[in-house]
Amino acid sequence: WAFSLAHLACLDWAKAFSPKAQRSHQDSQSPPFIPQKSRVSPKADAQGSLACHWVDSPLPPSSGAARTSQGDAEQKQPKSRTGPWSLLVVQAPLQLLSASSDAAAVPGFLGAPSAGAAGAGAAALGSRWEPGRGWGRTACIVTGASRGLGRSLARLLAARLPPGSALLLVARSAGPLGRLEGELRAAWPGLLVRALPADLGSEQGLRRVAEAGRALRGAGDPQRLLLINNAASLGDVSKTFSDFSEPGNVNSYLNLNVTSALCLTASVLKAFPAQPGFSRLVVNISSLCALKPFKSWTLYCTGKAARDMMFQVLAAEEPDVRVLNYAPGPLDTSMQEEARSLSADPELRQAFLHLKESGELIDCDVSAHKLLDLLVANTFESGAHVDFYDT
Amino acid sequence: WAFSLAHLACLDWAKAFSPKAQRSHQDSQSPPFIPQKSRVSPKADAQGSLACHWVDSPLPPSSGAARTSQGDAEQKQPKSRTGPWSLLVVQAPLQLLSASSDAAAVPGFLGAPSAGAAGAGAAALGSRWEPGRGWGRTACIVTGASRGLGRSLARLLAARLPPGSALLLVARSAGPLGRLEGELRAAWPGLLVRALPADLGSEQGLRRVAEAGRALRGAGDPQRLLLINNAASLGDVSKTFSDFSEPGNVNSYLNLNVTSALCLTASVLKAFPAQPGFSRLVVNISSLCALKPFKSWTLYCTGKAARDMMFQVLAAEEPDVRVLNYAPGPLDTSMQEEARSLSADPELRQAFLHLKESGELIDCDVSAHKLLDLLVANTFESGAHVDFYDT
Repeated sequence: WAFSLAHLACLDWAKAFSPKAQRSHQDSQSPPFIPQKSRVSPKADAQGSLACHWVDSPLPPSSGAARTSQGDAEQKQPKSRTGPWSLLVVQAPLQLLSASSDAAAVPGFLGAPSAGAAGAGAAALGSRWEPGRGWGRTACIVTGASRGLGRSLARLLAARLPPGSALLLVARSAGPLGRLEGELRAAWPGLLVRALPADLGSEQGLRRVAEAGRALRGAGDPQRLLLINNAASLGDVSKTFSDFSEPGNVNSYLNLNVTSALCLTASVLKAFPAQPGFSRLVVNISSLCALKPFKSWTLYCTGKAARDMMFQVLAAEEPDVRVLNYAPGPLDTSMQEEARSLSADPELRQAFLHLKESGELIDCDVSAHKLLDLLVANTFESGAHVDFYDT
Repeated sequence: WAFSLAHLACLDWAKAFSPKAQRSHQDSQSPPFIPQKSRVSPKADAQGSLACHWVDSPLPPSSGAARTSQGDAEQKQPKSRTGPWSLLVVQAPLQLLSASSDAAAVPGFLGAPSAGAAGAGAAALGSRWEPGRGWGRTACIVTGASRGLGRSLARLLAARLPPGSALLLVARSAGPLGRLEGELRAAWPGLLVRALPADLGSEQGLRRVAEAGRALRGAGDPQRLLLINNAASLGDVSKTFSDFSEPGNVNSYLNLNVTSALCLTASVLKAFPAQPGFSRLVVNISSLCALKPFKSWTLYCTGKAARDMMFQVLAAEEPDVRVLNYAPGPLDTSMQEEARSLSADPELRQAFLHLKESGELIDCDVSAHKLLDLLVANTFESGAHVDFYDT
């Protein structure tokens, strides 16, 4: 992941993406998707929620000073900080976070907004996603939220969102999703948390999620929308390109991984039209595979490239919508397990095995953390593809 | 089209593709996809088939000498050259083409190979797609062949392929496709020309085309395979991203424009496995839209980006298959007419109108010509995206 965009900046992109260029990288010690040197520790702190690591610096992450400060915060954190309340002792303009503990419980997901002090505090934050400022009440949707990166994002967001915010969590697995909902409702009673078990790959599932997403308009009095299109599948990586002679599985894959992200985003944006003082932010969880072909990952690469472009069109069409294609890096998830064991390409299997054994896979909490930092810093160009290793 | 890849070579691609960069281009006199200066005349010669323009130079097109020679051939061609036989008077190592006129008619599409002098001559050409050498007997498939670029490619290929070659033409429109079949059979009796009216967007249509493609294995004794995935649709450009809340049309679009290209290519490659002395070449008709978002072209951009990546995976997986993503430039076709009249984005409509009125749209024959030159020169990197304006 690390090398890709830095190299591409000075190279003819067509050559950089070509199989020949790929081979030249493979000839070196590590395969092309393994970072040669990362500025970011891929390991989560073992002391608990990463929410307590987050430094809401007024400097954007691209600033060297801010990066160092964040790195220090991660590495030198005292062991005594074990819970989310430790957030309160981190030095930063943390209006957003300090308000959370004061929030009164809001009865029901679509209930009236909390009118308490916390709500007023959040409203005073303004309506822009600006670095160093908290977020106002947010209508937030995370798909694929029951595990991996989606669950990490849900937990971090719950810790960051001000009371009166709504968090709609979508995934196929009802059990883990329900447990996450229970956990977040208990920890953050000021939030409106709703778990919606649904298969975005089915028309009915997509319709239910789109309806629930649109209904967030009436959940409290949101000042911003955050939609994170995270749900995805790896596809059958035991097959190579030439094995895909039957359209059924290919269409199912594209339906879940491309169509549903387009239709859900379109539905939700229609329900939250542009209006002064209301900000809209859409994240596509992308991959290096959107930029670079991986042998035996035909469907995954195709789907990720399609999504990146689709969201670039959105960014071009709607200047007021902030759009980010975020590649989270090689995460330590069940999808990675699938990749290591099933990929038809032996070099790829070996490379992923190496990542796992050498501890180079990235903890989902760490990558989720990085994404939320990017969103708060808000310095990315709308529609850009930003990789975990880029900043 | 012209500016894009040249600029990208030295720029951070993410910035180059961003809406901001796009705006800065739009601020200049022409919109971003209009070439500022083209080294290639976009107009076809008015004297008839472009087959007679083709100079099979031993130098690759990237050589200045070869380019000049081709340009001269186009511009200074005597008016008396009106038919395909004029090919024979062009100075070049044209074993391939000079053999054509000697060929005996081959009875039936799947008949035995011609054993005449022409067949022997073609067999002597060797099995590599090398610059300055003719092609051996080729099993050739062109989708979307009834009009536009596909029809131009079919006509040019018919004039270039040696006797005993087979040309499978696929399109939805039976009438125009049948007329093209008749025209080519009459002009090139040594070829096995078959028109197959079919909708690649239907499972049955895809299956019929895949079967006919596989059957080419027994059509003569082919020395190479050439599959040109040209069939495509523009999608509903009257809609913007946020209008696509219903999955049905999106899935239909992806099925025709992404899935069918994957499944047809996979089927045909399986039927023509790698073997010594047999070469395989797959072309994806791409677009600048695979690299750059166009407002109100959500589906088209998404599909083209998906296809480019899909074929990059093929190139990475199968080093013996030559793969080219060819962007033919803004063609003067019925699709362009749709684009000018229906695109939701007014700037885009205006820009296409300007291209039409100023005569900057590219004649399909010219772009088809360029593609075949690229294939014969065979200097592209497998999996690369090559634009009409690149060479």
